[in-house]
Amino acid sequence: MSSTYAIRGNLIFTKTPEKFTVLEHGYLICEDRTILGAFPELPDRYRGMEVTDYGERLIIPGLSDLHLHAPQYGFRGMGHYIPRDGWTTWFDLYAFPEESRYADLDYARRAYTRLADDLLTTTTTRFAMFATLHRPATELLMELLSERGFAGYVGKLNMDRNSLPGYQETTEETIRETILWLNNCQGHFGDIKPIVTPRYTPTSTDTSMEALGKIVEEYRVPVMSHLSEGLNEIEWVKELKPGLSCYGEAYDMYGMFGSVTPTIMAHCVYPNEAELALMSRRNVTVAHCAQCNLSLGNIAPIRTYLEHGIRVGLGTDVAGGDTLELLRHLPFVTDASYARWNLTERQDPMEEPKGLDLPAAFYLASKGGGSFFPQKAGSFEEGFCFDAVVLDDQRLSDEWHSYNPIERLERLTRMGDDREIHAKYINGKKVL
Amino acid sequence: MSSTYAIRGNLIFTKTPEKFTVLEHGYLICEDRTILGAFPELPDRYRGMEVTDYGERLIIPGLSDLHLHAPQYGFRGMGHYIPRDGWTTWFDLYAFPEESRYADLDYARRAYTRLADDLLTTTTTRFAMFATLHRPATELLMELLSERGFAGYVGKLNMDRNSLPGYQETTEETIRETILWLNNCQGHFGDIKPIVTPRYTPTSTDTSMEALGKIVEEYRVPVMSHLSEGLNEIEWVKELKPGLSCYGEAYDMYGMFGSVTPTIMAHCVYPNEAELALMSRRNVTVAHCAQCNLSLGNIAPIRTYLEHGIRVGLGTDVAGGDTLELLRHLPFVTDASYARWNLTERQDPMEEPKGLDLPAAFYLASKGGGSFFPQKAGSFEEGFCFDAVVLDDQRLSDEWHSYNPIERLERLTRMGDDREIHAKYINGKKVL
Repeated sequence: MSSTYAIRGNLIFTKTPEKFTVLEHGYLICEDRTILGAFPELPDRYRGMEVTDYGERLIIPGLSDLHLHAPQYGFRGMGHYIPRDGWTTWFDLYAFPEESRYADLDYARRAYTRLADDLLTTTTTRFAMFATLHRPATELLMELLSERGFAGYVGKLNMDRNSLPGYQETTEETIRETILWLNNCQGHFGDIKPIVTPRYTPTSTDTSMEALGKIVEEYRVPVMSHLSEGLNEIEWVKELKPGLSCYGEAYDMYGMFGSVTPTIMAHCVYPNEAELALMSRRNVTVAHCAQCNLSLGNIAPIRTYLEHGIRVGLGTDVAGGDTLELLRHLPFVTDASYARWNLTERQDPMEEPKGLDLPAAFYLASKGGGSFFPQKAGSFEEGFCFDAVVLDDQRLSDEWHSYNPIERLERLTRMGDDREIHAKYINGKKVL
Repeated sequence: MSSTYAIRGNLIFTKTPEKFTVLEHGYLICEDRTILGAFPELPDRYRGMEVTDYGERLIIPGLSDLHLHAPQYGFRGMGHYIPRDGWTTWFDLYAFPEESRYADLDYARRAYTRLADDLLTTTTTRFAMFATLHRPATELLMELLSERGFAGYVGKLNMDRNSLPGYQETTEETIRETILWLNNCQGHFGDIKPIVTPRYTPTSTDTSMEALGKIVEEYRVPVMSHLSEGLNEIEWVKELKPGLSCYGEAYDMYGMFGSVTPTIMAHCVYPNEAELALMSRRNVTVAHCAQCNLSLGNIAPIRTYLEHGIRVGLGTDVAGGDTLELLRHLPFVTDASYARWNLTERQDPMEEPKGLDLPAAFYLASKGGGSFFPQKAGSFEEGFCFDAVVLDDQRLSDEWHSYNPIERLERLTRMGDDREIHAKYINGKKVL
């Protein structure tokens, strides 16, 4: 395949959160990893160009999963019914024991290969993915993802307190291994890049946070972590870092809250006013994990973030979330936003409901999350990365019905799975 | 296959909402449509009995879907993003136009055949299913379901006001056709039985409700309808039937709220104290449609119903709900119940969360809903209908992990689909 070509199909994407742009039987033109444009007809200047015609199939921009835990994939879809008195139990029963197995590189290869393969048959093209403490396994994960053509960030975890015996680094180790890892990444792993990843405040000492802040500044790498996911977590952070105006300050004081490099914070369910103001000022990106949040009885105030001009993308949060397929998380984004309004803001029985609708949720999954990456991603506008997913929804359709492209997309968000992923392009390269 | 036999596998069921009963490699014994018992080993008295061994697969009781709309299956998975200022719009855009197509029996055959076939590869064995106004199409649906071995209720709709032109009966028609239909059902359609089904108060005149009440008494058929699904609907009923203590009274005054025959009411999101008391007194069964409710921003107070001793089963509410697979609705039952508590009842950040857990949700889907049927259904206890579904979850499992039966069931509720349905028995007959 030459570096300049077109694909044809029913193009559907969101330039803004308000509405879909649909080009039925439209052309999407690629040159050198980048989109030249989306057109209803092939423009004269491109006549004779190689065209792959996907017929009636839908073509959407590749989606960005801004929060998932690669080493938790083995216990996806379970662990939701432990006693709900705190995250500690879930960590003890599921996350820490499973993650500690990645010290074994053979285990890591088997498990990460399944993850990377399964990720191919989803709409995700880019991501910000947590790995484990283990540098070798993290580098292996980056290699496996790069081999399959993915783009995005992978983070070796930092944890030097409050984890399990055997799954915790010393402060010296966590700093040394992070530097070694960042050096090893230089010139390796294609479009898979490193991101500094303290798990969250309770598992990183002040000394390690200070050192990580300096590393971020020196290596100019972005940062990701968790923020204000649960009320008990916030109480714990208050004990560990007394006197702060908000949880976010516990990252900001070390230059890891957007002041130095771009930063993703996952969950952000319970912000206070100080946190909203700080996030807005620092241009922090929220990774909204709607399905995982709901499984804990939580609904994050996404409309509030958007009203504050704060950038929001979506995360599957596997294995806190159940599926790698980000499209299947969109109904949680929309429906939970209406439920939050209904249960906490509604004033009158006959009031018009407020919440996020499908174009807004799709925008967050595509252009919203895609804006975190240095190259523009998540739209079919000129100059964006050529990331595209071709969807074949024949299995879901009755031939005696007709559905318009937006209805077809909606159906994919509620009924689709790996069987509908027909082809996939990342940075102009066909990876599936 | 003789009428007395056993199947073997990992049996999992709920005698009570509190916990699962698990028999690994257990035996489930059938005699004449009925369960003789579930045993860890084949008892001596059954030695020599024909045994089908399903190995490591899970075997669960068939589930009961207490609320779905058969003629809406064609627009499943869509229609959620219309203006949310009232149900009327959704009725006008989706429900009424599609349902009116079932006047054409050829159309009905094509569409209902797909529904009946798709329902085979789910865990549902019994149901209470809305059809349309059309008597011939309703009888066809009953025939198609009976041919496939299903059990349960199908309702020809009654609507003699507030519908669309062309999709509404006169009062005289709705009475006459209902009587004709009930007569036609006698001795036909195997285990598929009729249930009287006024759509809801706004679409039935007082005259037709009075006549239907008399029919229910004469024919001793059960009743199903919708109740208190949305605040705007409740306001409308208040206008149509002023002076009642609650919406439920609008059915009760005609003997269609459990006082004469068993009654299912779908949704029940906004009960007042009078309604709770009346439902409890009349032994009305709630069809809880958690996923559909959430898609409208609603979370029904199921813990409240259970505390009042009110019977609750589950409904997929297709096409208000997105999938026929009831297992996939269980996470909505549990997670939304925690969200409701968290958003409306939580007093303190460190309080222990309250909500329904997986055994409770599974109980509602199996024994809870199954208790609506004249024969006991939904458990593997002695004397229950022999309804069983064999699930093969190999696709979802990593061979380097081990999962216990409860974890495997949890994973099926969050990741499973038609690919996992391996075999199915209804009333002792293997239907798949």
